[in-house]
Amino acid sequence: MLRIDALVAALGGELVGDGGVPLRRVATLEQAGEGDLAFLANPKYLARLKSSRAAAFIVGPAHRSVVAGRPCIVTDDPYLYFARASQFFNPAPPLAPGAHARASVRCPVPATAAIDAGAVVEEGASIGDDVLIGANSYVGKGARVGRGTRIAPNVTIYADCVIGENCIVHAGAVIGADGFGFAREPSGAWVKIPQIGRVVIGNEVEIGANTTIDRGVLDDTVIGDGVKLDNQIQIAHNVRIGEHTIIAGSAGVAGSARIGARCMIGGQSGISGHISIADDVIISACTLVAKSIRKAGVYTGSLPQQTHADWARNFAHLRHLDALADRIRILEQRLEEQH
Amino acid sequence: MLRIDALVAALGGELVGDGGVPLRRVATLEQAGEGDLAFLANPKYLARLKSSRAAAFIVGPAHRSVVAGRPCIVTDDPYLYFARASQFFNPAPPLAPGAHARASVRCPVPATAAIDAGAVVEEGASIGDDVLIGANSYVGKGARVGRGTRIAPNVTIYADCVIGENCIVHAGAVIGADGFGFAREPSGAWVKIPQIGRVVIGNEVEIGANTTIDRGVLDDTVIGDGVKLDNQIQIAHNVRIGEHTIIAGSAGVAGSARIGARCMIGGQSGISGHISIADDVIISACTLVAKSIRKAGVYTGSLPQQTHADWARNFAHLRHLDALADRIRILEQRLEEQH
Amino acid sequence: MLRIDALVAALGGELVGDGGVPLRRVATLEQAGEGDLAFLANPKYLARLKSSRAAAFIVGPAHRSVVAGRPCIVTDDPYLYFARASQFFNPAPPLAPGAHARASVRCPVPATAAIDAGAVVEEGASIGDDVLIGANSYVGKGARVGRGTRIAPNVTIYADCVIGENCIVHAGAVIGADGFGFAREPSGAWVKIPQIGRVVIGNEVEIGANTTIDRGVLDDTVIGDGVKLDNQIQIAHNVRIGEHTIIAGSAGVAGSARIGARCMIGGQSGISGHISIADDVIISACTLVAKSIRKAGVYTGSLPQQTHADWARNFAHLRHLDALADRIRILEQRLEEQH
Repeated sequence: MLRIDALVAALGGELVGDGGVPLRRVATLEQAGEGDLAFLANPKYLARLKSSRAAAFIVGPAHRSVVAGRPCIVTDDPYLYFARASQFFNPAPPLAPGAHARASVRCPVPATAAIDAGAVVEEGASIGDDVLIGANSYVGKGARVGRGTRIAPNVTIYADCVIGENCIVHAGAVIGADGFGFAREPSGAWVKIPQIGRVVIGNEVEIGANTTIDRGVLDDTVIGDGVKLDNQIQIAHNVRIGEHTIIAGSAGVAGSARIGARCMIGGQSGISGHISIADDVIISACTLVAKSIRKAGVYTGSLPQQTHADWARNFAHLRHLDALADRIRILEQRLEEQH
Repeated sequence: MLRIDALVAALGGELVGDGGVPLRRVATLEQAGEGDLAFLANPKYLARLKSSRAAAFIVGPAHRSVVAGRPCIVTDDPYLYFARASQFFNPAPPLAPGAHARASVRCPVPATAAIDAGAVVEEGASIGDDVLIGANSYVGKGARVGRGTRIAPNVTIYADCVIGENCIVHAGAVIGADGFGFAREPSGAWVKIPQIGRVVIGNEVEIGANTTIDRGVLDDTVIGDGVKLDNQIQIAHNVRIGEHTIIAGSAGVAGSARIGARCMIGGQSGISGHISIADDVIISACTLVAKSIRKAGVYTGSLPQQTHADWARNFAHLRHLDALADRIRILEQRLEEQH
Repeated sequence: MLRIDALVAALGGELVGDGGVPLRRVATLEQAGEGDLAFLANPKYLARLKSSRAAAFIVGPAHRSVVAGRPCIVTDDPYLYFARASQFFNPAPPLAPGAHARASVRCPVPATAAIDAGAVVEEGASIGDDVLIGANSYVGKGARVGRGTRIAPNVTIYADCVIGENCIVHAGAVIGADGFGFAREPSGAWVKIPQIGRVVIGNEVEIGANTTIDRGVLDDTVIGDGVKLDNQIQIAHNVRIGEHTIIAGSAGVAGSARIGARCMIGGQSGISGHISIADDVIISACTLVAKSIRKAGVYTGSLPQQTHADWARNFAHLRHLDALADRIRILEQRLEEQH
């Protein structure tokens, strides 16, 4: 248990009310009870706040006097404050340093690093201080994992790839598999182009479960500092992603695409190969980005659901839109001729 | 070999013809030969049935007298009967109970469970009777796997997650990785929100290869009894899926979406975050569900292929549909003015 | 270092210029320097060639005299030549034959094969000469891996599946998990249909990271010789893919679809179940193929991005296209009546 005034001393914000209230964790407005700190990030949940049994709240300046009798932490961005408070109450579990007896480690490893059972770290690899290599994960020859980075179980990092500091790589991710590059013989058979570039990942990057990032053909695939990738994402060879860009689940980025900094890419989007996306671009979910985007802004290309009957009626015309447009043109001509 | 009357005694249905015919397996109408039991679920394959060399058939009431001289099992749902007959001929292979010498097991495990080579089961985990933990799979601290559940190789189950009884989890699946939750600093950098909820999976659930289910932010992600998830599916944090819902491959469900019971979600569909889908909803393949669906029914939002030339012609207008609609409005006004 | 005339002696092509120039590797036009061989496959990069510091170039017949003073290899297909030259400079790393002390091998394995740490090869499996089974990968009972095939770490090959010769299977791929087949009880619950077919993969096939290929229901799932599959692809049960077909990342192929030879399928495409695609078909990225395609050609069904504002304006009409078409019909009738 921690007094709320101690939390405010650590994280900032303005304390309104009793500084001696003890807190044990963060919780949602609905689930919160004694000892719980809840937050109001979206005013539409104000009614939930009023009925919440939380011990204290994180609120914005507009709601400082909403809750009588229970302390509030007033801050400009309650959601950001909640994130920091939750980190405070939920620090990453400590490592158990050392290489497990069933790890296979073929390079020197610092005493502060933890290599779990079944992990394989090849010769010439470099492991930083306070690194975790999870159970049954693989770190290839010459690969580098920066200090403080945590690799979950069953991750594969191919030879020579570089992962920065304080990254998180979730289970099943594959970093540095061969990019998809082939030349075609006249017969139609494909000749593999060796993929000899690397994957180079910056600091503070998070990579989701079963996400794949391919190594470059000749140059590297590069993921900037602070990038966050959700699960099941495919990043092809020679892609470059600018810092603090965030990509939601199941999106795909084709070869040599360049994505700017601070972009937000929706789930299941597809980014075509060899195009560029400017900084601060937002792509809606399920959107195909087929051409370069030069300007910050929001871009969309999805086709949301209708009832199947409505869809069938509308889609029949969609397949013949060119003919519909012709009929409009003819109508216009005929009306013109009447005058 | 098993007599057909013994099969009918075990599984029900009406036997028409010689009960002494020996059966050894189920097979398709085309591949079937001596000792094989084939089925007719779709009347359009009736011609194949007539030319099949199967020893016996499973048919619906309408086809009881179609095949002279070979026995039939008549049942209202031949496909369902086929499923049960195939289970009868193809029981799951027996487990080899015990922990392999190369498994790392840090909790007590019942004598009937099998922990295969390279598997890692952390302290505080709970493994039920007759459970299989496949080779090189990982079960985190405090996670629970219910009796009769089979975990394939290279699966990752994070700490504290719960998997019910008689489930099947296929290779490469990841249960309980961190959900994708960040707050944004004014600089554009992202602050991780600890994901401290769990994944709670019911009984009789099947989870496909390389499917990922994220743990909740504060509350749990919940998968109901009897849910079937195909391969490569992404289920985000705090999603709730009702019982007996089935989702086809490569679909994605965004955070906090709620899907009802007995839904059927097509492959590559995307379900947006924070929406609700009623019970008994059918979503076509490749459909984005961007808004809540309150009523059972079939919903679609896909754009099937055309030849590239047709597509290019039609799509040019699709990008300017608003202008086309304006031209129709103007035509209507002009005609109106003529009167 | 290798003289350029030795390379031409090995790979063919016409040498123009000094045969004594030493080469050490292939490189892009921009990154190339002393000892580097660069290539011009696309004439739009001609300016880059002219400013490149590469020691020598691979060019087409039209560009044989473009570069004065530096040798060129003239060939009809510079990209194909580059692929072969890169293979020449970057041979696959040699295997370290033998089973690692921490591999679990339950079948005989040839002396030339390498089974890495943590790999599990079950009884009755068959491993060819010069095969690599990567760290922590799994080869099930009775599975076969043909000579020269390389399996990366953390791959799962289920029982009885067959992988041909000289294949590459990247990390996290899952070959032979159960197909997604269920019959429905009147209650809505699903009854599993045992998946007793196999996956049979030809020679010279490459399978990307975290790609999944399901085993057949009763018959096999079949991948032809020379097929190349990118990452994160889902191939459902009983699919058949013809030789030299290539599929880009995150595509999905539903059950029993048949894809011809030498097709090129774009990323994130979806192929519906039970349809056929002819030989030599090209499918654009993000296209749903909902009906069979009988003729070679290019097919598209995507909806590329617009600004969100444009999309919202156009999409409003798309949802009511049937009504727009009605209004055109009425306008035509009214004009007709005027005459």
